[in-house]
Amino acid sequence: MPTAVVLLSGGMDSCVSCAEALHQGYSVAALHVNYGQLTQDRELQAFNDICDHYNIDQRLVVDISHLASIGGSALTDRTIQLRTNQLATEQFGAEGNSSKSEVPNTYVPFRNANILAIATSWAEVIGATAIFIGAVQEDSSGYPDCTREFFESFQTAINTGTKPETTIQILTPVIDFKKHQIVTRGAELGAPLHKSWSCYTNGDVPCGECDSCRLRERGFYVAQVTDESRL
Amino acid sequence: MPTAVVLLSGGMDSCVSCAEALHQGYSVAALHVNYGQLTQDRELQAFNDICDHYNIDQRLVVDISHLASIGGSALTDRTIQLRTNQLATEQFGAEGNSSKSEVPNTYVPFRNANILAIATSWAEVIGATAIFIGAVQEDSSGYPDCTREFFESFQTAINTGTKPETTIQILTPVIDFKKHQIVTRGAELGAPLHKSWSCYTNGDVPCGECDSCRLRERGFYVAQVTDESRL
Repeated sequence: MPTAVVLLSGGMDSCVSCAEALHQGYSVAALHVNYGQLTQDRELQAFNDICDHYNIDQRLVVDISHLASIGGSALTDRTIQLRTNQLATEQFGAEGNSSKSEVPNTYVPFRNANILAIATSWAEVIGATAIFIGAVQEDSSGYPDCTREFFESFQTAINTGTKPETTIQILTPVIDFKKHQIVTRGAELGAPLHKSWSCYTNGDVPCGECDSCRLRERGFYVAQVTDESRL
Repeated sequence: MPTAVVLLSGGMDSCVSCAEALHQGYSVAALHVNYGQLTQDRELQAFNDICDHYNIDQRLVVDISHLASIGGSALTDRTIQLRTNQLATEQFGAEGNSSKSEVPNTYVPFRNANILAIATSWAEVIGATAIFIGAVQEDSSGYPDCTREFFESFQTAINTGTKPETTIQILTPVIDFKKHQIVTRGAELGAPLHKSWSCYTNGDVPCGECDSCRLRERGFYVAQVTDESRL
């Protein structure tokens, strides 16, 4: 049985990517990264809940809170105000100030490269042949490190920067999905979506107002699936 | 004055790269990474000594000791024995068991990608336009993440994975140098080579026996420069 490193943030997209890896017959080694994000504790709980659900023993939790020290993102820096609706206006087609070329201030500079580099180091040591990452190009509109183009170039970096005998493939099973398609696929695979956490704020229950909550709610609505985490 | 992030391990190659960045007119932001290597404390001291020498104020020290937890390298794992002479036999042309295609066991899986990812995140936030890394392709023979090919592919990952307005160039000023050329160039630029640390073991003075010490000694010998750290 081949092994895959699955990047499991605890969010819905990574939850479905994990389900996809298991569905494709991989043994899953789950990687979670704390990067000093405001919702760190809640996301770690979601990571462990999903791992428990799937009986995943091989877990690695890594702290890269230097990304928070470096700053530059509303997700890690309390002095930068979360601009709500910046994603929502693009996604839902409403009028807004955000232009398509503007990168949202929730972008954590080059975060996915940092995470993929760790995943590759781990994959090379444990002999995993795939890395699953639940990046979504369209729904995260404007994050440069969520594009297919970025993942293709990072794939080349992996091919050139690891041992000749190492073969690791980046897989992005939901990259072209809209949020409702992720919900639908998750429901099909029996993914524990109710254990995932999407909200950009910390709390016992999701705020229901941030961009991420709104995208999630909309996704469940369009997919006509009940979000059991809201029951 | 443009800013460059300089990766400053405290070794000779990065010391000369730092001198090169200053020589080219950059304001230097120095980045040091602890990755759980056995010589961590001594290298950090060398980093600070070199920064002090150049009056570099902007310093960032990052801990990525998860690379040590991940393991797979003699540099981070005490249970893997440092194979001495594995570089030396290749470099010095003597007979040995190591074949050219074999990656030395001092290779830390995908380390340079991890380090470059951090450097890129920092560079993007502070507006640096260059990253200097003192990688050497030939002298580190067999490290896949020290090749020109790897750096070119990582450059593409930076171009695609950062904001459209971000421009960061990876510069590898010593990549094609042999060790003695690094010594010569360092001496020309007045780099504080005597403050750098090369030894793979920990101690007050270099062991003089490990691959890294032998390469350094040979470099100074061929360049006909005195290594003041050995006086």
